[in-house]
Amino acid sequence: METTLPSLAIIGGTGKEGAGLALRWAHKGYPVIIGSRDAERAAQKAAELNTQLGVQTVRGMANAEAAAAAQIIVLSVPYTAHAETIAAIKAAAQGKLLIDVTVPINAADYRTVYVPEGKSACVEAQAMLGDSVKVVAAFQNVSAVHLKKLDHGVDCDVLVCGDDPDAKAQVIALIEAIGMRGIDAGALMNAVAVEALTPVLLYINGRYKVKGAGIRITGFASSDHA
Amino acid sequence: METTLPSLAIIGGTGKEGAGLALRWAHKGYPVIIGSRDAERAAQKAAELNTQLGVQTVRGMANAEAAAAAQIIVLSVPYTAHAETIAAIKAAAQGKLLIDVTVPINAADYRTVYVPEGKSACVEAQAMLGDSVKVVAAFQNVSAVHLKKLDHGVDCDVLVCGDDPDAKAQVIALIEAIGMRGIDAGALMNAVAVEALTPVLLYINGRYKVKGAGIRITGFASSDHA
Repeated sequence: METTLPSLAIIGGTGKEGAGLALRWAHKGYPVIIGSRDAERAAQKAAELNTQLGVQTVRGMANAEAAAAAQIIVLSVPYTAHAETIAAIKAAAQGKLLIDVTVPINAADYRTVYVPEGKSACVEAQAMLGDSVKVVAAFQNVSAVHLKKLDHGVDCDVLVCGDDPDAKAQVIALIEAIGMRGIDAGALMNAVAVEALTPVLLYINGRYKVKGAGIRITGFASSDHA
Repeated sequence: METTLPSLAIIGGTGKEGAGLALRWAHKGYPVIIGSRDAERAAQKAAELNTQLGVQTVRGMANAEAAAAAQIIVLSVPYTAHAETIAAIKAAAQGKLLIDVTVPINAADYRTVYVPEGKSACVEAQAMLGDSVKVVAAFQNVSAVHLKKLDHGVDCDVLVCGDDPDAKAQVIALIEAIGMRGIDAGALMNAVAVEALTPVLLYINGRYKVKGAGIRITGFASSDHA
């Protein structure tokens, strides 16, 4: 079965969110490549995940090599490293689908919305990467706390924003493959809402002592969303 | 009981969202004043609501008079009328709590996030009204479709943003009074997320044929939020 599934490079895959996504996809048989600035750290994280899952399908590489080796790229880096990481993978990303998970955060006050110059990290990524790259926003609101617990369902919808309907459909399939509900949430510009919601959820975590608050969209008749 | 409840002016109360909120609060015994640019239309809507509820507690006035007559002001106007309405009620609002429900919308594409110059309508309202007015964001994500059906619970959390904790607590009490869950969602700047979510919900309504999509925050232990 693995041979028919697309390979996924998780750029920033040594971080908590990226590693959590890598774990979930590798567990479902996807070939996963962990990317890091440091190829050594990427290889270490890949070895950890292989051991945890009892597989050999996770590899580790430097970011640009990871992006070049995979069919689909997932970008999960701190916002402070967003622009430089995109510059490093830009050539390798041409013609590919790139799922951007990055949340603009003001480190001095991570529980208050920070609107970046381009309004959204994903919109900025699209502008930097150019039109041949299909940028789709997803997973910004999913806490790494939940992703790492494989035996535990994730009580959070994944809002999916992008300007290419086929690319969004591919991303929704990748979300459903790891047991979550992906919802088409409109144009890439709508990532403004999804990104801004993350500092709100971090605020709620602190204010109400919640571990990994998430969101659900209401109003669907059951299974209407598919 | 009515005498102990604060009076509420619903500025823009002839619109669907404002009228829905007026209906819900009047039903729970709050003295409600419908505000409109046109005092005549305000009086008509007040009479309608009184008839529907079998009460005499809803009055109608021009916006500035409504704001002056009430203890708490609720602002629910189209974004295109936001600045001029604030100018009209500014004097009457000094020293009061103002709940801003306004969503920045680009009428040409209301299903795509529109980030206004001040980043958020509520942040703009606070800047225009000055520091003696306590601006709190609430209800942006609650569909009027649900508010008008009194026999029908509203399956949507109300995210409450503001810079004054006491003002937020008052607003959460007003939300709970009409049977919804109000959640402290942080600083007024966090209204960016809440406002931007509304075009996303409108997109989802169209994309999935949902009537009035809403949101729920997940991760709370039951009744942990209160």
